[in-house]
Amino acid sequence: MSFFETLADRIEATDSVVSVGLDPDPNRLPEFLANADLPRWAFNRRIIDATHEHAACYKPNAAFYEDADGWRALEETIAYAHGKDVPVLLDAKRADIGNTTRQYAAALDRADAITVNPYLGRDSLQPFLDREEKGVFVLCRTSNPGGSDLQDLELASGEPLYERVAALADVWNGNDNVGLVVGATAPEELAEVREIVPEIPFLVPGVGAQGGDAEAAVEHGLADRPDAAVDVGLVNSSRGIIFAGEESSRPDDEATYFGAAGDAAKRLKKRLNQYR
Amino acid sequence: MSFFETLADRIEATDSVVSVGLDPDPNRLPEFLANADLPRWAFNRRIIDATHEHAACYKPNAAFYEDADGWRALEETIAYAHGKDVPVLLDAKRADIGNTTRQYAAALDRADAITVNPYLGRDSLQPFLDREEKGVFVLCRTSNPGGSDLQDLELASGEPLYERVAALADVWNGNDNVGLVVGATAPEELAEVREIVPEIPFLVPGVGAQGGDAEAAVEHGLADRPDAAVDVGLVNSSRGIIFAGEESSRPDDEATYFGAAGDAAKRLKKRLNQYR
Repeated sequence: MSFFETLADRIEATDSVVSVGLDPDPNRLPEFLANADLPRWAFNRRIIDATHEHAACYKPNAAFYEDADGWRALEETIAYAHGKDVPVLLDAKRADIGNTTRQYAAALDRADAITVNPYLGRDSLQPFLDREEKGVFVLCRTSNPGGSDLQDLELASGEPLYERVAALADVWNGNDNVGLVVGATAPEELAEVREIVPEIPFLVPGVGAQGGDAEAAVEHGLADRPDAAVDVGLVNSSRGIIFAGEESSRPDDEATYFGAAGDAAKRLKKRLNQYR
Repeated sequence: MSFFETLADRIEATDSVVSVGLDPDPNRLPEFLANADLPRWAFNRRIIDATHEHAACYKPNAAFYEDADGWRALEETIAYAHGKDVPVLLDAKRADIGNTTRQYAAALDRADAITVNPYLGRDSLQPFLDREEKGVFVLCRTSNPGGSDLQDLELASGEPLYERVAALADVWNGNDNVGLVVGATAPEELAEVREIVPEIPFLVPGVGAQGGDAEAAVEHGLADRPDAAVDVGLVNSSRGIIFAGEESSRPDDEATYFGAAGDAAKRLKKRLNQYR
């Protein structure tokens, strides 16, 4: 079964296109987990318990796991999410060349999908693309201010670079396993990219803490695919969900803290479902 | 002391611009290290012992360390290289946004320099650039075939994307700590980029196993900087040095195997020094 088929099933089962970003910033983990064996894993496990009913997908960002304990926490997290039937998209933004990028692609032995960076071109992504049953989300238009530095550059052919990246990703999509990362902070760009690639699912970050446009994220981020009963795509929130407990009535109480994360995931699901 | 000052001193002390790529592909590690506690670390330690006299720099590629044991092996490797007075450039090709890229930049707590990917723009690199005493090598023109997919795209302003990246990197270089990655497989492009940024040191991969042009790598890769007694830059070889033992007379003999790596590093140093 392909990643997008798995994802479509999950979206249907949960009635949700919410991707929950698992970015356990060590400086923001609650005090009461400070003495856990692997605090990031202890945190993620509780977040998964609290949110999985509303999660189409979990998206751990690799940056938060780049040390020996971190990779153990990540492995445990992926296995636990799978135990709850939730697919895992590793937000790694990787790409390298030749024998090296094959090493990076080994991350897909565990995760179901990954984000990759297109700057090094097709062969740098080939070992990812070759994994037919896995999803490969190519960075296209990112939601940060500096995203425009390169991505908006106008090409001699008239279109901005990010539109060319979308067109290239379509060419690279021989295994029908390519997605695109398109930020919600630029709604009109979401619409333009959707026009170029009608059937490619988007991962849309930037709806939570970054304040992006939820309606545009759903309208353009989800793809109407012939093989799926529901439109397929993901709208991600990380800090807005996992650290919602900081604003709860009793942030030092474990049940209250993680309950707030569950509530935040549910709220986002409902907010997005208005537009589906 | 800035990274480029440290590097200039090291180049002068060793009379070498060789960067030794530490890419311990698990499928190519010699049999006789199979039972070591951390085989990658055991391998790297012996490579460092054999090559450090000829190494201006070690360049571990993060892709080969992305698991719990791997990060331990990498930490040991960096500490050991520092014990031999050799700076370490982590070839990570990272970039992400906001709070996430700050996590990636923490890699510079250990390494002396890092490679980064420009596709997400300036703010994605800012936490790296802010580390004044560290080196930040921005991917510009890579040595793989697909490097042309995006990097050679002609902009409306007339130049290819990689030249714009070089110009942007120059703008981002407020702390005088920016380098560029420019492959040796396209010598004329090396010359063009050098013209745009006369004082920025290059990391030039692709001279070893990839068969790039050593003369062009030295002529254009090294920067004539007002603050340094020698021209500053790095020419990298990974597999051509670290796996030279596979072609030695006795690949199953530890001393012969690693002796071949030392010989290969020395040969590359001499070959490059013809053109310095």
